[in-house]
Amino acid sequence: MTISRRSFIKTGAAGALMLTAGGLDAAASACISPKKKAAKTEDKFHLGAAGYTFVKFDLDTALKTLQRADVHYLCIKDFHLPLNATDDQIAAFHAKCASYGVTGYGVGPIYMETEAEADRAFAYARRVGVKVLVGVPSYEILPYVDKKLEEYPEIKYAIHLHGPDINIFQTASVIWDKVKDLNPRLGMCLDVGHDLRGGADPVEDLKKYHTRVFDMHFKDESEASKAGWCVEIGRGKIDFPALVRMMRKVGYSGVCSLEYEKDMDDPFMGIAESFGYLKAVIANS
Amino acid sequence: MTISRRSFIKTGAAGALMLTAGGLDAAASACISPKKKAAKTEDKFHLGAAGYTFVKFDLDTALKTLQRADVHYLCIKDFHLPLNATDDQIAAFHAKCASYGVTGYGVGPIYMETEAEADRAFAYARRVGVKVLVGVPSYEILPYVDKKLEEYPEIKYAIHLHGPDINIFQTASVIWDKVKDLNPRLGMCLDVGHDLRGGADPVEDLKKYHTRVFDMHFKDESEASKAGWCVEIGRGKIDFPALVRMMRKVGYSGVCSLEYEKDMDDPFMGIAESFGYLKAVIANS
Repeated sequence: MTISRRSFIKTGAAGALMLTAGGLDAAASACISPKKKAAKTEDKFHLGAAGYTFVKFDLDTALKTLQRADVHYLCIKDFHLPLNATDDQIAAFHAKCASYGVTGYGVGPIYMETEAEADRAFAYARRVGVKVLVGVPSYEILPYVDKKLEEYPEIKYAIHLHGPDINIFQTASVIWDKVKDLNPRLGMCLDVGHDLRGGADPVEDLKKYHTRVFDMHFKDESEASKAGWCVEIGRGKIDFPALVRMMRKVGYSGVCSLEYEKDMDDPFMGIAESFGYLKAVIANS
Repeated sequence: MTISRRSFIKTGAAGALMLTAGGLDAAASACISPKKKAAKTEDKFHLGAAGYTFVKFDLDTALKTLQRADVHYLCIKDFHLPLNATDDQIAAFHAKCASYGVTGYGVGPIYMETEAEADRAFAYARRVGVKVLVGVPSYEILPYVDKKLEEYPEIKYAIHLHGPDINIFQTASVIWDKVKDLNPRLGMCLDVGHDLRGGADPVEDLKKYHTRVFDMHFKDESEASKAGWCVEIGRGKIDFPALVRMMRKVGYSGVCSLEYEKDMDDPFMGIAESFGYLKAVIANS
């Protein structure tokens, strides 16, 4: 129990620093443990979690899980912070995250097919104070999203790719073709599992498209096809050491958020095994 | 749930094979997943768990945890299988382990200071049918243990080292000095955490003493001194990639059993993170 209290105090202090220092960089330096920082001072990316991992659990459970895993970034899903949250609710949300040493660094995925839905999502991202909006737009709304980015110079819009399960934005290359001539802040959340299930190579796609990769979802897959299902990181088909080496090669400076979709009624051991595997790959690759 | 059922069937079948094939080698090949096997076909060692990790939990909880972690070896503690267990109780124990894809590969640590306690421990190891007896003998009983090994040609006796917390068998070198002229099947369970806390280098000690290392306890430590406490593997001071490379260099063919002693009322996330870290080190080092 001494250990738990100490670690709570440590991450609690880090959390406090995050809010006062402001900005992800200050938060990041506060979050990384000395050992890890000493090991890979050059790394610009950080481990995190996609809120969807905790779709069946409340915010406190999600944050406690990240604190125990020594992971400090969360992409915020609306079931933890509603799109119509007031400024007071948003401030309380950030304070609770900070008490667990966690920074809510982005919002989404948020689905949008109408201008009203896009307006609401952008306004929400600004009120929450994040720099990354992970969106699932329709093809038809994309020009409007492109125009909205001019009103929101602080926001990078990351289109979430969904692999072969839906019929738009299946892989990184599909997104690239749709956005390459649009605002440079219109890019993608590279979901390495869905990209693989879509028949693509996520390592090669990061190399090709990294200038528009603003967020990443990490997961492993049992098969490199539509038949694949989510497994603990390290048990599947994705070459994570190669992926981490490519993140360093292209200077990826965003968050790698675990989106764990196996055993969602009791995902905690799988989440912890996945983070353990990733920590070893990051520390030793 | 489909995934869970499939994995239960797979490991259940592996468990059945273990018992019928007999011997750890057949069990091992049945247990290792194709991917891992393809990755490191030359590895002779296997991941496992020390029963003490589950001191506050019943056997079913321990086995379910190992099944979820895809780990298939357990060193049996007497709170899960009493020293006075009958042959029927032992058979039921092995059948339950097999139903989770787990092999009980050794027994202990078992404390022994009298000839009667040594006699009981050896007879228990033979009835349980294991090849490794992890013992905590007194210095005075060691000559009797040495003599007992002549009656038990199938048994390797692994003295568990306990670091600076008790005043005998603190480190690998202390054990080596006591056993180097005795039966070659009288050696040690190299607890890398306690060895480090005792001021030794577990990687160098494995290199020096591997001919008498019959079992290993894996844990990480916050400090390389008596002040160190158990932390998730990868968060502490032990260089696990170097340890795994040395295990390969010396051809270690036993089990590396996680003995996780943090948050023992709720150790499951720490156990899973530790196994995830170790799997990455083994797959990628």
